Amino acid sequence: MTRTQLETLQHTLRNRPVADPAPGLDQQRQFFDAMRAATPLPPGITTRPGRLGDVPVVFAEPPGTDPSTPVVLYFHGGAYVLGSAAAGVPLAAGLAARAGGRGISVGYRLAPEHPFPAAVDDALAAYRGLLDLGVEPARITVAGDSAGGGLAVAALVAARDAGLPLPSAAVVLSPWSDLTLSGASVTTRAGDDLVLTADTLGQGAADYLGPADPRSALASPGLTADLSGLPPLLVQVGSHEILLDDAVTLAARAAAFDVPVDLQIRPGLPHVYQRFAGTGQLDQADAALDAAGDFLRGTLAPALTVTVRSA
Amino acid sequence: MTRTQLETLQHTLRNRPVADPAPGLDQQRQFFDAMRAATPLPPGITTRPGRLGDVPVVFAEPPGTDPSTPVVLYFHGGAYVLGSAAAGVPLAAGLAARAGGRGISVGYRLAPEHPFPAAVDDALAAYRGLLDLGVEPARITVAGDSAGGGLAVAALVAARDAGLPLPSAAVVLSPWSDLTLSGASVTTRAGDDLVLTADTLGQGAADYLGPADPRSALASPGLTADLSGLPPLLVQVGSHEILLDDAVTLAARAAAFDVPVDLQIRPGLPHVYQRFAGTGQLDQADAALDAAGDFLRGTLAPALTVTVRSA
Repeated sequence: MTRTQLETLQHTLRNRPVADPAPGLDQQRQFFDAMRAATPLPPGITTRPGRLGDVPVVFAEPPGTDPSTPVVLYFHGGAYVLGSAAAGVPLAAGLAARAGGRGISVGYRLAPEHPFPAAVDDALAAYRGLLDLGVEPARITVAGDSAGGGLAVAALVAARDAGLPLPSAAVVLSPWSDLTLSGASVTTRAGDDLVLTADTLGQGAADYLGPADPRSALASPGLTADLSGLPPLLVQVGSHEILLDDAVTLAARAAAFDVPVDLQIRPGLPHVYQRFAGTGQLDQADAALDAAGDFLRGTLAPALTVTVRSA
Repeated sequence: MTRTQLETLQHTLRNRPVADPAPGLDQQRQFFDAMRAATPLPPGITTRPGRLGDVPVVFAEPPGTDPSTPVVLYFHGGAYVLGSAAAGVPLAAGLAARAGGRGISVGYRLAPEHPFPAAVDDALAAYRGLLDLGVEPARITVAGDSAGGGLAVAALVAARDAGLPLPSAAVVLSPWSDLTLSGASVTTRAGDDLVLTADTLGQGAADYLGPADPRSALASPGLTADLSGLPPLLVQVGSHEILLDDAVTLAARAAAFDVPVDLQIRPGLPHVYQRFAGTGQLDQADAALDAAGDFLRGTLAPALTVTVRSA
């Protein structure tokens, strides 16, 4: 059954309509947000906009949330040029619910309007804001997908270098953590990847980096950052991704710095396949979030309740 | 507490007595078997010697074992020159108990008396013997540590090429799957590894390979084998191992062939740290086998009972 689901999904991705062959940035942003909004929220979650460290965020809270409720601080994807706090809410909430926590999705500034390191500055400011609220680091996980996965790791590096206490764990889904696009999979998986192209990522990197070196530690943490002292890291990726090697390289680099690492690679699955969780289209998406929940329950300080679990 | 355990263990490993600075092969084999026998069996396990496909094995069976009981077919380590069916029993049984199954530890022929591909021939013969007994492939997992981890993968490749139905999964602990010793960790982790040296492995490779190419697919499956069609693979490794990169490279290569892969890297831990499970010396050893049990329960056909689980 899962195989048929995947084949159906691959067909849908391969044949999705292209409304405008050369959409403007505003149109791309609208499309991206609509795509991410298609992932259903876990039941009972209330969302509300707010600010954290003066950065706009969306809180996604289960019933009974109080200041001790564990937090998944989430960074959406979108190649540093697309996405919004709202776009990150479904995966933030999906991860958080499986760990008995609340999600907080960060609306970091986007390129090209706000180039590197604006996103890292905002990510660090949001994390610092969360600490300033009195949330214990042991009750915080950082997480993100795609560019947001790389950003989550960069935020950890920046937080460590700023002398802040670090969160309990990090969960990154199909992370983009090598802005030089040096992974062999950028080429070897080009024919399999139904979501991303090297051109799209290259444009995002150029918009984000401006004159900055793509090998900068906070731009390509999986490639060049000192990752020592980072908390346990869970990396999930599909094998049909040009970013497959970003995930492997990040995991290997983290291990080289003695970070506990779990890497989960699932065959045939597309970029950020977890966004299909809760849609009934892809059981592996729900299973991946469940596995992330298992990981989080092993790393976060004891959660109050676990409110969602796939059958 | 875990940190103190690890520090104590590292101290013990660093200061272990060397009875004979240049022991003969027989003495090394006795020492290796005694070391592996120090890992306690899960409670209630009965062991008995036997044969499978005319290869000597030891069966490690929980109460109530019947022909439908899932099997962990285990290949011990020892650089292809040390070890025995008996040496593999504790980890075979430890893994099997956590999946509600029985362990079968394979006494494949050793080098230098029996060079490559004798070990692979025996591994395949044992697997074929298990199928001939009528055990369903969906109820079989292959597993192994160190050289036995590489051998488990080689056995899968050989079984696939022989047209046999493949087992449900593979679990490899600190696998040695690159007999060319090309991993960077062979150098970068030389100062951290308290168990293995490149010299020891190089001698084992020379004894095992004889005139064979160290890049042969069945000798170095993590480096050169076509891994397509293999079942889900769990790889566990400590970060303080010269074989750290063998684990990462095997995982990456499996993913390149669209094999489902879980890679679990734990910082500071030594080669085949799971052998300390049940000793009270290293909680992470028990946790690793528990995690392997979780993996096996997700891949093996439904187990009858789960008889061991760490607190």
